[in-house]
Amino acid sequence: MLQEKIKRPTLLLDKNKCLNNIELMLNKAIKNNIQLRPHFKTHQSHTIGRWFRNYGIQKITVSSVRMATYFAADNWKDITIAFPHNIHESDQVAQLAQKIQLNIVVENLESLQAIIPLLKSKIHVFIKGDTGYNRTGLSIEKKGTIDTLLDYIDSNEHLVFEGFLIHAGHTYQSTSQESIQKIHQESLQKIQSFRAAYSARYPQLTISYGDTPSCSVVNNFDGIDEIRPGNFVFYDLSQWRISSCSLDQIALAMACPVVAKHPDRNEVIIYGGGVHFSKDRSTHHNGQTYFGLVAKNTEKGWSTSPKAAYAKSLSQEHGVIKGSTEWLSTVHIGDILIIVPIHSCMTADLMKEYLTTEGIWIRDMMRLSQ
Amino acid sequence: MLQEKIKRPTLLLDKNKCLNNIELMLNKAIKNNIQLRPHFKTHQSHTIGRWFRNYGIQKITVSSVRMATYFAADNWKDITIAFPHNIHESDQVAQLAQKIQLNIVVENLESLQAIIPLLKSKIHVFIKGDTGYNRTGLSIEKKGTIDTLLDYIDSNEHLVFEGFLIHAGHTYQSTSQESIQKIHQESLQKIQSFRAAYSARYPQLTISYGDTPSCSVVNNFDGIDEIRPGNFVFYDLSQWRISSCSLDQIALAMACPVVAKHPDRNEVIIYGGGVHFSKDRSTHHNGQTYFGLVAKNTEKGWSTSPKAAYAKSLSQEHGVIKGSTEWLSTVHIGDILIIVPIHSCMTADLMKEYLTTEGIWIRDMMRLSQ
Repeated sequence: MLQEKIKRPTLLLDKNKCLNNIELMLNKAIKNNIQLRPHFKTHQSHTIGRWFRNYGIQKITVSSVRMATYFAADNWKDITIAFPHNIHESDQVAQLAQKIQLNIVVENLESLQAIIPLLKSKIHVFIKGDTGYNRTGLSIEKKGTIDTLLDYIDSNEHLVFEGFLIHAGHTYQSTSQESIQKIHQESLQKIQSFRAAYSARYPQLTISYGDTPSCSVVNNFDGIDEIRPGNFVFYDLSQWRISSCSLDQIALAMACPVVAKHPDRNEVIIYGGGVHFSKDRSTHHNGQTYFGLVAKNTEKGWSTSPKAAYAKSLSQEHGVIKGSTEWLSTVHIGDILIIVPIHSCMTADLMKEYLTTEGIWIRDMMRLSQ
Repeated sequence: MLQEKIKRPTLLLDKNKCLNNIELMLNKAIKNNIQLRPHFKTHQSHTIGRWFRNYGIQKITVSSVRMATYFAADNWKDITIAFPHNIHESDQVAQLAQKIQLNIVVENLESLQAIIPLLKSKIHVFIKGDTGYNRTGLSIEKKGTIDTLLDYIDSNEHLVFEGFLIHAGHTYQSTSQESIQKIHQESLQKIQSFRAAYSARYPQLTISYGDTPSCSVVNNFDGIDEIRPGNFVFYDLSQWRISSCSLDQIALAMACPVVAKHPDRNEVIIYGGGVHFSKDRSTHHNGQTYFGLVAKNTEKGWSTSPKAAYAKSLSQEHGVIKGSTEWLSTVHIGDILIIVPIHSCMTADLMKEYLTTEGIWIRDMMRLSQ
């Protein structure tokens, strides 16, 4: 029945898997007595946001001012923009801070200086801390810079210091649970240094942490007050590869029509390419770079095996699927193949709409352009 | 002045460079007495389409039924959908064929059988030929299959055989003009075989050919009737790398605000990531994988040097720019960096709007979802 709705590349969402993923992460947070502030950049949808709300979630994370505004419009009242403040959006940030508890992230004085003249209400500030990812943020060795920022924050009536926001994004380069654990242990140590240096001055200090790999794999959150995973709501092959999830937990898949067959090279061509999947890639168990894994249709959705056929390459609209001779013999022109993506955040961002396995369209995603 | 309009990642378009690229390709086609049927999947915009029309272009190529419908709505009357016919869109294709000269591409009988019962007017058919790319299409060795398709086409009053449509997309894997030339020579030989086999039966046979690398580099189009390059309208670093264009010809660039500086590792963080640039990558002259090249602001736009700072990595919204100490000392928080992308088709598809260097917004791009 679902198949009949599919004429073009379509993003399928298994709501049950999605709800299970939310429940599992929330239970882990509750058990560890930490706040779950999920990152909504993964789904970017009011509807899916409300699924979280139904579990009692009230605080969220986003990655842009536009996304904060989009979710504030659906009545989210406590939002962290987990991205270094962009001074060109100071106006919009100051306006939004009048309406909700808005938490911004800074790592330099310039960004604070730009927003101060525009503030008409309190705004909450996290300093971006770095525990080894080396993308953004200040490591504890930069205590001088941190202190300057803190003095500046404390001297301004509109600025409220919240704590340190940390993202150990290097877990994404892991290849095993062990290496995620190792990165996590190193991060926990650095977090202790942040605490040791500042908990006397700020007894209410919040340490906000947590990428999906760490939050999925580890069980020790000592010194952490809140976690901000995002991808876990859907998971994907990148997460599966680093053992953050099982294949069965992946809640998103692309459905793509077969348009050509090439049995002499064990390949099938689908309508579905880089503009649908994104060009994010990973490494297949056979060593080849790949862009997705073919799943089997089941009565309620799909199931996936690691050794299934896979997307070998993507052009703008074409995908080349490579499979066994036996598999190929079961595929026909016009079949709808279900393909689990490498990076669900990027795929969802491109597709801008979901079709649930129950047959409901979700089309309320944020748009990048006006 | 342009800088004042930029608050967030913004796609800049240098219209003059773009018009020069169109002119150059059109002049080449005229000189070689071949038809230029540009591929509009690169820009996906009515406005930019009209720039082509101003040069007398009347026939175009697109990569999806939706894109054909989008451009037909702006009065394009002769459109080739250069993608194997997707049987699930037979309805829409048959409807569109009543309004314009619609040329579809097939490589199997199933796709023709699916559309025939729906046709109320003539539809023009290209058979997809393969000259070595091995993505889609039938090589001349598959003469039996080709003959079956031709007999089927000839036996149906609504089907008009146009010729063979060929895409030598393996030129994109080239690293020099020489290897593009070599692929082109091989393709020309195969094209002669197609002609030899079918020109007696079809004296009006059209051979449609042409990716941007071949069309940019080669000067011998013997046996080719029409070319369908698309990317050349903007070009990008992928094309520059394989010597299809100069850096100065690249007509697109992203403008991104600087949000953080890390002088200790010679890095700057921009607001601009995978959801803006796409995750397409190439190899920098220093051997590193990169995602874009920083350009210098000039009075009329930008200029680029191969040894400039570059985008070393992209997350969803962050970009990490690596540059020399000297360059870094000139960059400040809030500066707008101009960054030439790796693959302009994918970047344009994500951004969905252009800001010309003359300060005009172009926002009439096709949308993937409804």
